[in-house]
Amino acid sequence: MSVDIATYVHDLAVAAKAASASLATASDEQRQEAVRAMAAALRNGVDSIVAANELDMSAARDAGTSAGLLDRLLLTPERVEGMAAGLEKLAELPDPVGRVLDHRILASGVDLTRVSVPLGLVAIVYEARPNVTADAAGICIRTGNACILRGGSLAYHSCAMIAELLADALEAKGFPREAVSMIESTDREATGELMKLRGIVDVLIPRGGAGLIQRCVRESLVPVIETGTGNCHIYVHESADFDKALNIIVNAKTQRVGVCNAAESLLVDRAVADAFLPAVVAVLHDHGVLIHGDEATCAACADAGFVEGDDYVAATEEDWGREYLALEMSVKVVANEDEAIAHINRYGTMHSEAIISEDVDACERFLDAVDASAVYANASTRFTDGGEFGLGAEIGISTQKLHARGPFAAEALTTYKYKLRGTGQVRP
Amino acid sequence: MSVDIATYVHDLAVAAKAASASLATASDEQRQEAVRAMAAALRNGVDSIVAANELDMSAARDAGTSAGLLDRLLLTPERVEGMAAGLEKLAELPDPVGRVLDHRILASGVDLTRVSVPLGLVAIVYEARPNVTADAAGICIRTGNACILRGGSLAYHSCAMIAELLADALEAKGFPREAVSMIESTDREATGELMKLRGIVDVLIPRGGAGLIQRCVRESLVPVIETGTGNCHIYVHESADFDKALNIIVNAKTQRVGVCNAAESLLVDRAVADAFLPAVVAVLHDHGVLIHGDEATCAACADAGFVEGDDYVAATEEDWGREYLALEMSVKVVANEDEAIAHINRYGTMHSEAIISEDVDACERFLDAVDASAVYANASTRFTDGGEFGLGAEIGISTQKLHARGPFAAEALTTYKYKLRGTGQVRP
Repeated sequence: MSVDIATYVHDLAVAAKAASASLATASDEQRQEAVRAMAAALRNGVDSIVAANELDMSAARDAGTSAGLLDRLLLTPERVEGMAAGLEKLAELPDPVGRVLDHRILASGVDLTRVSVPLGLVAIVYEARPNVTADAAGICIRTGNACILRGGSLAYHSCAMIAELLADALEAKGFPREAVSMIESTDREATGELMKLRGIVDVLIPRGGAGLIQRCVRESLVPVIETGTGNCHIYVHESADFDKALNIIVNAKTQRVGVCNAAESLLVDRAVADAFLPAVVAVLHDHGVLIHGDEATCAACADAGFVEGDDYVAATEEDWGREYLALEMSVKVVANEDEAIAHINRYGTMHSEAIISEDVDACERFLDAVDASAVYANASTRFTDGGEFGLGAEIGISTQKLHARGPFAAEALTTYKYKLRGTGQVRP
Repeated sequence: MSVDIATYVHDLAVAAKAASASLATASDEQRQEAVRAMAAALRNGVDSIVAANELDMSAARDAGTSAGLLDRLLLTPERVEGMAAGLEKLAELPDPVGRVLDHRILASGVDLTRVSVPLGLVAIVYEARPNVTADAAGICIRTGNACILRGGSLAYHSCAMIAELLADALEAKGFPREAVSMIESTDREATGELMKLRGIVDVLIPRGGAGLIQRCVRESLVPVIETGTGNCHIYVHESADFDKALNIIVNAKTQRVGVCNAAESLLVDRAVADAFLPAVVAVLHDHGVLIHGDEATCAACADAGFVEGDDYVAATEEDWGREYLALEMSVKVVANEDEAIAHINRYGTMHSEAIISEDVDACERFLDAVDASAVYANASTRFTDGGEFGLGAEIGISTQKLHARGPFAAEALTTYKYKLRGTGQVRP
């Protein structure tokens, strides 16, 4: 069985890679048309998609799946329409392929251009959100890449049906259907095999929880774009405007708690701790936030009459590195800005980090010295988002430094090549 | 011992990463001055460097090291001067840090800039070329990065002395000396430990042979920039000008045989095989090239009276993937351009690939469809080089697609961050 799954995934990837060639040389218009045809195929196939989804839903219910997960898994006609509309939006994206990034005539007279080109074969591994199938395939085809997809096993039937409809649409437009290839196996080893295919798969993008991402980062021989984890800090400087600070903290912590750009840790400058801590713990408490506090913070919570264990707990070393994704926040007093910066660079995940300060020099120091993809002065970390940043359809938020950092979109699915046109030149 | 080396490398890297902060916030001028001081330190320390090198040379001679390797290992006063002059040239490079890559005002009024910043801590692993120590440290400091270096054990004393002098110079300019950290151990495990330090080391660049590079690619958890292997092809199209073709083939194959942009494989279109093969095998033979030929090529060699085994041999499947780095070349007849492209995309290493053709459409098809960092029409693959491409001091030639492709220079040692300056904005 292990040999079978290895062969299956390998052969599927080789076929998908071969299919990528016809995408890479297709025109912008041809790729737009293909994506529009994919949208139409979803609309036309809505009944089959909903029927396939019912199989997944019923198995998931039998397995005692949580309500939250069931909701993510569910596909209704409205949600299918949403997927189709999403594809049509992708078709409208400006083409990231074929941009001339550089042009020069070499000393020898050879004409050099550096041109953006598709990556080739993009692997996307995700969990039980069947809509990612259309989204991922759409962005790959739009950018001239083939894709090999691996959905969560809970969504097996839904993903397979969507992928089949998309491949049919591609084929009808003259592209090889293997350009959208779905790994139709629930064997956990399939992902492991995919990660070995360096040289065939050009990039692997995991979209899912921290466990999936860390597995890819540790095991994959294929280059990975690491996404997702955000242990985001807000540092309240001694010169902070308290109203702004409270407003930003509430927004960053509580507006949506399950997202990677939500704040997880609050650092308060010692110079204003006595004045600010009572105010901030009161506001956090009002919003139902469980406080993991250092000594001073716990004292402020006790002074406010909060119940230890219910309203606040003493922070442990582990808390400084935690991404709660919940109504919880770690709170710590720091000696000064240097300590705040050092703390963030030690415990942060290079996602989004903010200072609240009316002192421009302190803000600039923070923006320079904190090592993260997005650094903020006096604004909420919640702005870190491809749409908000004006990048178009976001694929994810990269917490690595190479290739793509921060929110990334279609352009991250391209690389470049040097084209050199000569008339017989040789190197002297 | 294994625990000791792990702790040693880890602690060294943590200190180097901490030192990177002061480089990252230093001005262009301060970094230029530091690199100039490093050059002066090498000049002043020439006697110590040569003395340290004599220790390495004597040990290497005793170990029966080959003349070629001994020559690479040798440092003379002239070579030390060359290293110093190289550092002064690096100081003059335009600053790749602090470029504003994007600027926009978000809908909320938050001011966003995307700015190039140093990567942080760069690890460079190399072999018995002690001069790489100065070169690697210089490019890192110039670009605001700290570096952790690991030289070949044959060059142990030379590398350690050079690194010490460079660190002294940095310290004299007010930077932490840990910004140039040398792993002073000949334990092979040191490289393995370095490769585990994801999150501390930001990128690992192996500079050396295929064995070293492949080990890094397979084992490293730290992102790697893969360099070096070049199984470069020249495809002679049916419309080729034979004189141009012969001239380019000789240049690409024989001008320097040990370099990654040298040609290793020749593909000849069937339509012109009868006319072209006799000419090309004669020219290759004149230049002392051992031909690994397919059936038609071997027949042409036999017709020319060449000696099988000495002048030519039958190519095996393995030959199509080989980088000889020697006066050897594989030669194969292909049915047409499509087969040539498919063959190159299958056996190539995405380095440099050329078509020789007077047919513009055939050239453009080749440039579009061949998946490589540099694709040529009617010019020698030997042009693939940072200096030739106008990029400045080349670090290497990347054969991967993410982050940096083809010849890469200082800019590849930077990433970017988004800086967002607000006045209290929260996400609606």
